Amino acid sequence: MSFTDVEIEYLRSQLIGRMATVQPDGTLQVNPVTYRYNDKWGTIDVGGFNFTRSRKFRNVLDNGRVAFVVDDVPSTSPWRVRCVEIRGYAEVVEEPDAFPDLDDMIIRIHPKRIISFGIAEPDTPPHLLTYHKRNVG
Amino acid sequence: MSFTDVEIEYLRSQLIGRMATVQPDGTLQVNPVTYRYNDKWGTIDVGGFNFTRSRKFRNVLDNGRVAFVVDDVPSTSPWRVRCVEIRGYAEVVEEPDAFPDLDDMIIRIHPKRIISFGIAEPDTPPHLLTYHKRNVG
Repeated sequence: MSFTDVEIEYLRSQLIGRMATVQPDGTLQVNPVTYRYNDKWGTIDVGGFNFTRSRKFRNVLDNGRVAFVVDDVPSTSPWRVRCVEIRGYAEVVEEPDAFPDLDDMIIRIHPKRIISFGIAEPDTPPHLLTYHKRNVG
Repeated sequence: MSFTDVEIEYLRSQLIGRMATVQPDGTLQVNPVTYRYNDKWGTIDVGGFNFTRSRKFRNVLDNGRVAFVVDDVPSTSPWRVRCVEIRGYAEVVEEPDAFPDLDDMIIRIHPKRIISFGIAEPDTPPHLLTYHKRNVG
């Protein structure tokens, strides 16, 4: 699968992610989104309300280019940031069971590159942390 | 100025933002970043550590296209999300005083479009909230 066990645990522990998309004219946008890790496909599934009328939805239909990040700041002293970033491509699929309270149409993000930081080493001093980067899929 | 008073208050209340950039080959990325609102220029200033060697820094030098969002979930029942999103262009500037503990070179984001949600109406039921969108600059 695409993600490590600790990355999956982390993805499941957070409330929202942020998805970057690009408009047909090249303008970037980035939006907070509801998501879940899909262990059947190793994807990130993104749901929304009135989703199919949103520009991010149309951006995905237009070009499928996305990046997605889940992060938090578990400590401010010392300053510590954790994140899992995904770069990849997205498609629109109909999956009514994915988010029962949201639209039937969802955005499915397929990772091509995963970059995580601070997830696997909770006891390592922040200044000694390094990025874990890998291509997948 | 670009931002409303409540947006500025909100921007100052949060710990990190997320900045989307685009690589020369078109790949999107999105990263958690340290930022501050710059009231002199009405910009968002982004700082970093070993910043000038990062890809996001080189992306900004390459094409200057950015989107930036600050968000949080102040309530899960009812589900409530707040955010201020900025679409615009960024430049690299040298400003050693902006982030004393970080690199002297910073990324300065100039808003062209600001979209906020849930900031100005803390008592409005979530399903009645609408986006505030405007072009600036």
